[in-house]
Amino acid sequence: MKFGLFGGATAAAAPSQAASERLLLDQPEDSHSYGAFIDAIVEAESLGFHSIFLVEHHFTGEAQVSAPLNLLTYLAAKTSTIRLGTGVIVIPWHNPVLLAEQAATVDVLSNGRFDFGVGKGYRPREFEGFCISIQESAGRFEESMTLIKKSLSSNERFSFHSDRWNFEDIVVEPPPVQKPHPPMWLAAGRPDSLRYAANGDYSLLLDQFATFDVTLERFAIYREAVEASGKSFDPMNVAVARGMHIIRSEEEREIAINRRMAALDHMNQMAKSNDAGYQTSMTSDPDLRKAAEQGTLIGTPEEIIDRLKQLQDGGVEYILLAGVQMSPPQMRAFAEEITPAFT
Amino acid sequence: MKFGLFGGATAAAAPSQAASERLLLDQPEDSHSYGAFIDAIVEAESLGFHSIFLVEHHFTGEAQVSAPLNLLTYLAAKTSTIRLGTGVIVIPWHNPVLLAEQAATVDVLSNGRFDFGVGKGYRPREFEGFCISIQESAGRFEESMTLIKKSLSSNERFSFHSDRWNFEDIVVEPPPVQKPHPPMWLAAGRPDSLRYAANGDYSLLLDQFATFDVTLERFAIYREAVEASGKSFDPMNVAVARGMHIIRSEEEREIAINRRMAALDHMNQMAKSNDAGYQTSMTSDPDLRKAAEQGTLIGTPEEIIDRLKQLQDGGVEYILLAGVQMSPPQMRAFAEEITPAFT
Repeated sequence: MKFGLFGGATAAAAPSQAASERLLLDQPEDSHSYGAFIDAIVEAESLGFHSIFLVEHHFTGEAQVSAPLNLLTYLAAKTSTIRLGTGVIVIPWHNPVLLAEQAATVDVLSNGRFDFGVGKGYRPREFEGFCISIQESAGRFEESMTLIKKSLSSNERFSFHSDRWNFEDIVVEPPPVQKPHPPMWLAAGRPDSLRYAANGDYSLLLDQFATFDVTLERFAIYREAVEASGKSFDPMNVAVARGMHIIRSEEEREIAINRRMAALDHMNQMAKSNDAGYQTSMTSDPDLRKAAEQGTLIGTPEEIIDRLKQLQDGGVEYILLAGVQMSPPQMRAFAEEITPAFT
Repeated sequence: MKFGLFGGATAAAAPSQAASERLLLDQPEDSHSYGAFIDAIVEAESLGFHSIFLVEHHFTGEAQVSAPLNLLTYLAAKTSTIRLGTGVIVIPWHNPVLLAEQAATVDVLSNGRFDFGVGKGYRPREFEGFCISIQESAGRFEESMTLIKKSLSSNERFSFHSDRWNFEDIVVEPPPVQKPHPPMWLAAGRPDSLRYAANGDYSLLLDQFATFDVTLERFAIYREAVEASGKSFDPMNVAVARGMHIIRSEEEREIAINRRMAALDHMNQMAKSNDAGYQTSMTSDPDLRKAAEQGTLIGTPEEIIDRLKQLQDGGVEYILLAGVQMSPPQMRAFAEEITPAFT
């Protein structure tokens, strides 16, 4: 089994800040900066973590990461082996050609360590901020991904014309290091989305919110769709995000679960629309206590190892610990007490 | 006097490559990569150079820098004092809010070393690639800069609506380190543009193509406009780009001038349109030999010191050596033999 990290960073400690990342873990005040995040990723590499997948968010007022490709570029300079991913870039908000150039540049500067995680977006308030209809997100995603793949893999000049985007006689540079392009990871959960990912040659990001049962179901649908299309299935092409907190007492367990429930509630709130027209929920179950208990790796090291073995029995070989980079003691304890059981 | 660097990098050695940067100087083959460029900037910092201003270009087929804010972010991690600038970001091609977020992120990650050089763009072929009319460039620039300044300096939520861009109830994060925003540098040459820069509180980038006479004329127009508006003039707010090549013999002089003429010709070609509808020339004089001889710092160290003193007599205190990062021996020789005459 391989272990990576997933999540964000905040640029500064805002007194009013109540970010999901902060609620998630008992993090010290001074971790509220890109600097602390960067230090944590440098340490994560030395602890043997395989990757970091970085979120993109806008207009939250919580100083979240809005320019993940820039922060990943900085990490590329500070690290040498850890893979650097987006989890995810929300394609409908970006000029696809400028985005392809930035992605290629990160791939060049990291010497081929870039994992290009992409998605359609889910937070109505962010779409409202960009004045882009969330109803258009699937169509925008599909069109832009066609153009991005062509941009990254073509050495020949080409043109592209649609209602949304027009490019004439362009060649997109620099060429990426990974050929034909950096691996593309799609965040998906619904059966049709999982099959779309499999058929579109996307690797799969499974979210941290679903319970283990739901996650393993999704894993199986994707694997079957990959195999049905005649390709061989590589479990390293599915990364499962999970909240994680090592506890040393029952008191700590209760605190960790309550904190997780607050974080899930906050993330559900962030996913809601200003008007009631478009509602979405991050958790696969409305019962937040159940989600916090059954969707996470909260427990003693032994319990966490057992839960990871459940996932491994279902075929999962790649876990992304969500938000753990914001709590270096937890990250170290995981590397020391849990990772060795899987290597 | 202070000395910085100006120019680009190429991602890989393409056999067909005939980039202006390559023609400009007698650079070794292995400097054709971002890696060599990065090493040169790290060395430039230790040699005492004040800044690097990095170009943005698209679709040239010469593997030029298309994502300068990513490359600057990488440099932010590898350096600690050198200022990191764009020379320039072409505003009409970008989503102004996404660009502001990226600029703020570079400013945060460099701890306030970002110089935000901006321009309207001049190469018709790049506008044709983006399918954006070059005739619209001034209007797009003006509108986007209003929005970018507001994005970088406002801590309050705001909305913006126009025919081109719409944003509703947004706050742009992270906040930059430099307040109210990173210094903004405008590339300008025509008298009205110089006055526009002065009145808009832009610092000024003067190009490497104009002869010394024309450059000093432009410098004076800008200074007068700043003073006429009641502000005090700081010569560090005007950076003059210059081609530079130290020669040790008359034979080397002739080679350097011929190479410069070829580079100028190439850059003039890149500035031309595919059709004959829009023509522009980079050089202020159609006589390329005159431009190469009278617009550059080509000469022995003594001659170059004399020419720099001419600029200093006109009030210039800040020079950007164009393309010199691609020839580390020239960069070192300048730092050792010429810089000391001005400190």
